[in-house]
Amino acid sequence: MRRAPTTRASIVAQAAPLFNQRGYTGVSMSDIMAATGLKKGGLYNHFESKEQLALAAFEYAIRQVRRRFIEALRTTQTATESLLAILGVMQRYVVDPPVLGGCPVLNTAVDSDDAHPALRTRAQQAMTELQDYIRVTVQQGIDSGEFRDGLDPDAIASLLLATLDGALVLSKLYDDPRHMHRAVDHLAWYIHHNVISPK
Amino acid sequence: MRRAPTTRASIVAQAAPLFNQRGYTGVSMSDIMAATGLKKGGLYNHFESKEQLALAAFEYAIRQVRRRFIEALRTTQTATESLLAILGVMQRYVVDPPVLGGCPVLNTAVDSDDAHPALRTRAQQAMTELQDYIRVTVQQGIDSGEFRDGLDPDAIASLLLATLDGALVLSKLYDDPRHMHRAVDHLAWYIHHNVISPK
Repeated sequence: MRRAPTTRASIVAQAAPLFNQRGYTGVSMSDIMAATGLKKGGLYNHFESKEQLALAAFEYAIRQVRRRFIEALRTTQTATESLLAILGVMQRYVVDPPVLGGCPVLNTAVDSDDAHPALRTRAQQAMTELQDYIRVTVQQGIDSGEFRDGLDPDAIASLLLATLDGALVLSKLYDDPRHMHRAVDHLAWYIHHNVISPK
Repeated sequence: MRRAPTTRASIVAQAAPLFNQRGYTGVSMSDIMAATGLKKGGLYNHFESKEQLALAAFEYAIRQVRRRFIEALRTTQTATESLLAILGVMQRYVVDPPVLGGCPVLNTAVDSDDAHPALRTRAQQAMTELQDYIRVTVQQGIDSGEFRDGLDPDAIASLLLATLDGALVLSKLYDDPRHMHRAVDHLAWYIHHNVISPK
């Protein structure tokens, strides 16, 4: 039998979609109290500030996203499959988001210019984690001969993330997954024609 | 001699970078009072609500962005030049933003899920304006034989905007214009190799 979640974990799970949908400044501790049914004392018993709760909520949201990537990348055998699996995760994202309100990294990147510097740093780290994964995958592809020589792994990581993140923004703005489908189609075409070694 | 700006225009010009940097929910009417030095009565004399002021500030920000595009597109002679000019505007954007805080359309797209539906609608319209411009440009290029037959103008508009917007997010998150340069390099390469008719 699973243990019931602690109050702390339950607060975080309920706060995560709120922060992700409305941004750090758009959520007040009163909103969290309303969502959780906790009184002020009960809430501040677990989190001494909104800043602290927002960080915990971000970590929670990121874990949901990371789980999607781990799941998709666990069974890939080649560098090509790994890159295509990342496209697949993002394609699923627009119709079945792992956490309500879109991508927490993207939202935080756009949102918290100076409101919460620690949150911004965490968003950078989370984006860098995926960027590093792509970079290493591309390098492995080059080393094994699966990918062309002379590719710039940094540039490919940057291109994939920019295109997918921008497509997520457009798909969300228009509530239309076609923008993501087109981005994924383009990147898959690019990978097949300009990343994979010609036979 | 230019007339001194009206108080209303001056409020809007000062509110625009605040809203653009912190988002709709991140700015209070008190912040606007502090920035403009106006008292409550003076401010509410011009704007009956924060909602109304935020919309006016967004229109102001959008005008600064639109001016950049008009300037860059005024002298282009061909569809290729027009598409490359759009890339140039975005490349300049990351080092010399027309309004502080990044792109107002992008920020509003990510920011105002449900906080301010009218603002979201305006962001959609502004994004659609640029999307339509690209779409029409691509169609003209196809019609004149400058571009390949069989291109999908919608897909190209979507791809350009997604890639450039995503690159703007990454460049801002890392405070590093290289992400935009790579996106622009990729799109320029794509335009030359897959959009322009082979000679």
